[in-house]
Amino acid sequence: MSGTTPQPTSRTRTRSWWGWGWQDAHPDDAECTAMGALIPGTLARPLPVPRICDLHIGAPAVEPPASLAHVVDADPEQRAAHAMGKAYRDVVRALRGRPGRIPDLIGRPTDDHEVADLLHWAGERQIAVVPYGGGSSVSGGVEYRGDAHRAVMSLDLTAMGRVLEVDTLGLAARIQAGTLGPSLEDQLRPHGLTLRHFPQSFEFSTLGGWLATRAGGHYATGRTHIDDFVQSLHVVTPAGSGASWRLPASGAGPSPDRLFLGSEGALGVITEAWVRVQRRPVHKESASLAFTDFHAALQAVRAIAQSDLSPANCRLLDTGEAALSGAAHDGSAVLVLGFESADEPVAARLAQAVDLARSHGGRAKAATPAADGARADAAVSAWRSAFLRMPYLRDGLARMGAVAETFETAATWDRIPALIDMVRKEVGEAALKATGHPATVNCRLTHVYPDGAAPYFTVLAAGRSGDEDALWDELKAVASDVLHRHRATITHHHAVGRDHRPGYDRQRPEPFALALRAAKGALDPRGILNPGVLID
Amino acid sequence: MSGTTPQPTSRTRTRSWWGWGWQDAHPDDAECTAMGALIPGTLARPLPVPRICDLHIGAPAVEPPASLAHVVDADPEQRAAHAMGKAYRDVVRALRGRPGRIPDLIGRPTDDHEVADLLHWAGERQIAVVPYGGGSSVSGGVEYRGDAHRAVMSLDLTAMGRVLEVDTLGLAARIQAGTLGPSLEDQLRPHGLTLRHFPQSFEFSTLGGWLATRAGGHYATGRTHIDDFVQSLHVVTPAGSGASWRLPASGAGPSPDRLFLGSEGALGVITEAWVRVQRRPVHKESASLAFTDFHAALQAVRAIAQSDLSPANCRLLDTGEAALSGAAHDGSAVLVLGFESADEPVAARLAQAVDLARSHGGRAKAATPAADGARADAAVSAWRSAFLRMPYLRDGLARMGAVAETFETAATWDRIPALIDMVRKEVGEAALKATGHPATVNCRLTHVYPDGAAPYFTVLAAGRSGDEDALWDELKAVASDVLHRHRATITHHHAVGRDHRPGYDRQRPEPFALALRAAKGALDPRGILNPGVLID
Repeated sequence: MSGTTPQPTSRTRTRSWWGWGWQDAHPDDAECTAMGALIPGTLARPLPVPRICDLHIGAPAVEPPASLAHVVDADPEQRAAHAMGKAYRDVVRALRGRPGRIPDLIGRPTDDHEVADLLHWAGERQIAVVPYGGGSSVSGGVEYRGDAHRAVMSLDLTAMGRVLEVDTLGLAARIQAGTLGPSLEDQLRPHGLTLRHFPQSFEFSTLGGWLATRAGGHYATGRTHIDDFVQSLHVVTPAGSGASWRLPASGAGPSPDRLFLGSEGALGVITEAWVRVQRRPVHKESASLAFTDFHAALQAVRAIAQSDLSPANCRLLDTGEAALSGAAHDGSAVLVLGFESADEPVAARLAQAVDLARSHGGRAKAATPAADGARADAAVSAWRSAFLRMPYLRDGLARMGAVAETFETAATWDRIPALIDMVRKEVGEAALKATGHPATVNCRLTHVYPDGAAPYFTVLAAGRSGDEDALWDELKAVASDVLHRHRATITHHHAVGRDHRPGYDRQRPEPFALALRAAKGALDPRGILNPGVLID
Repeated sequence: MSGTTPQPTSRTRTRSWWGWGWQDAHPDDAECTAMGALIPGTLARPLPVPRICDLHIGAPAVEPPASLAHVVDADPEQRAAHAMGKAYRDVVRALRGRPGRIPDLIGRPTDDHEVADLLHWAGERQIAVVPYGGGSSVSGGVEYRGDAHRAVMSLDLTAMGRVLEVDTLGLAARIQAGTLGPSLEDQLRPHGLTLRHFPQSFEFSTLGGWLATRAGGHYATGRTHIDDFVQSLHVVTPAGSGASWRLPASGAGPSPDRLFLGSEGALGVITEAWVRVQRRPVHKESASLAFTDFHAALQAVRAIAQSDLSPANCRLLDTGEAALSGAAHDGSAVLVLGFESADEPVAARLAQAVDLARSHGGRAKAATPAADGARADAAVSAWRSAFLRMPYLRDGLARMGAVAETFETAATWDRIPALIDMVRKEVGEAALKATGHPATVNCRLTHVYPDGAAPYFTVLAAGRSGDEDALWDELKAVASDVLHRHRATITHHHAVGRDHRPGYDRQRPEPFALALRAAKGALDPRGILNPGVLID
């Protein structure tokens, strides 16, 4: 199966094995050098792009039985590309020639039975199974650490990439877990429907990955978390398979789906789901407002989040983030507002939200017509472009030996201002102390709720040559301590994986830990499923 | 502790020990006789109101240690009142002098420590513990069946009835699980806030009961299920206690709260919760429309549910239900629409919903001013009054030897029309066959979703003298089979309890059954918590 291209829309482009996204979208050496010059203490020249041929990739420790040979891939390049996710620390490890453990095999099942057969074989042979969708994990969710298992199989679901049924009456679709974002939308589009779930990783992540990690979508309020789109899940576990019924709602016991949502492949493999889809929005309006005072802007956002307005976008960029994305260069914080509807014009709701923001000191800019007919302003457009390019720039900065990473959290409104201030302060101080150079710590709010918000931080700092990942781990530990002190979640939508385990273990209530451990023991008695994530 | 009144607002009224709600609100003999005359095959005179003094109530099989004596109540009347919930079959068993097993003791803890102490003692002595809030279960959720335990303790949480903290900035409140609906709202009102969760049982049910049973609120769309109000839960289990963090959202593993929501006291005792509250709505509008064709009305409701309008109420009453509640007497189905907002006028949204309903054949009636300043029409008012009185009338009919009970479900839109038709047909035929008299099987939609709806059925039939509960069980089994064939949930918001176990066991996906059983074993290793609900 090696050499097949799992993604219909990607036939003409090549995925980067070591960094984010498409190989041809990475900044070139000159751009890397120019970016690096903006961060004191980085390298003069970019680290070379790593090559798979420079890695030592041993022979697989196991061979599949003949009955499974057609769904197992031992191609060395594919194995290397499945060794890690796409966090900054993964990129650095690839750049420094120290990738995570390279899996022995890649399972490429095409249906539930093949998933079950692979799990059965893996259980018999003590092979760790790491479920793999688009491979875009930024929390160490798709690698193997340790040596407790005889071999490691990356279970790549992308050969299960079809929309199987569409219920146009009830606005739902049955979709295979390995369907990548663009393909999923391509298959829904002829029906006039959309899942309308657009995480930043959209191009490079799958429905199954979104479900297993409780992905947050692009939108600020309302239906944005993948959790709320789920009508039913089909799950294959070493102890058996089953699907929940398609139901709009049910009060029959604890939600079976909610136990597998966020289970990160540790309890079973989600192979397909019925998800709620929507008619495509046709009414769109957006605007941005500048704020001199970030804390006043927080109040504006809270007021909007506690109204009935339900904006599709309500992103607040602090001064640094606004400058970095090109949304403002005058030291303002910027609030990006957007409204969408499939039914009716949204200009009135936008105007109400703008009024609310103004009443808290926001300065509105006039909206100008955008290319697609919807109105947008320059700050909105600048921010959108920067948003999609951000992970590529991160990898370019990594090549310059810089630290360039993000993390997100969520907390109640009473804690938000101090939380953001303390993250900026303590992470900035720690970076200065560790590198001797001042660091940039920016913040934006990506999701807002009546009762709180999700701050998303960007850290740009000098690295520590050859040891950038360890430096990042130190800074992340400082950040995690601030989160813990403020009772802010260790992750809002990037999953726990292996990187967030210390924070998660402190946060998870003990009764739930007992229940989760017991559930894991019952469903995965041999402990082969994604060992190391969530719970031991 | 016997004789205390757990409910601050109920000081002047007495709860019925055998039937719904307040003793003084029950229909008198004359009203019962008049109602019974409407259902062929019922008794000529009402069964007498049952008296506790006629029951044989033995001495408790256990005595608490001195250290727990102050939180244990052995009063015979209180024990009898805690023997069962308030389903039709419970009322019939009380009327026929065959109540469920009377608990030996009532635990009345006032804080988490006392809950933990009671669980510890119960575990040592093999005493079954049945958590009890307002006692309004209609699915056998608060009784004990069988004899596998040495004794039975009803764990009444209503001494934990306070709102402990209010976060007016982030619109949340920390509330003890035993707080009854009216008291909860009374305590929030001075802050201008409301939980706005009004199940039909509101007066007689508690926050903890709502959480443990995944209660559905009064409202048709948007935030109505108690699940969506939860910020964090504090849970006491035999294996330890713990609380989730207060978070507006989190992607850190499977939701810990969602495992305990709907756990019906089988995994632990929810002792308090931080819940999301709201500013009190001040803008309210309602209207009703009549439909000649019930199936066309279903289309209208689907169109409204799939729009952005988000009505607070969107109840569709079929012909029989409209007649029964006084909303229409001309054979029409009636759609009751209501809109509410704390922020802005809702007349425009109501008008849009009315237009949508008209386009599917609805005939709107002019709205008339109501006493509270909000506009309402006669059908809406008639329905509201009937809604609150319904459970009392059910008990009156039970005294006439009639079958009078309800059940609800939910299903996707593609299944709704056939599901409703088949429930009416098969339950009607089964009742006719069993009693020789035609039965009434009405339906209303209580909650609507973009992807489906929740039909709520009312069955009125002749009984089988002395054996009414067994007859109801037979009819319910017929109904449950129809639900199963249509993959409609065994319960939308009345919980599984003991009565729905056969349906739940068929519906629950096997991997989740394994996980739930394992979780139960870990948290309740001696099997004392509400034995018989959810899982064995």
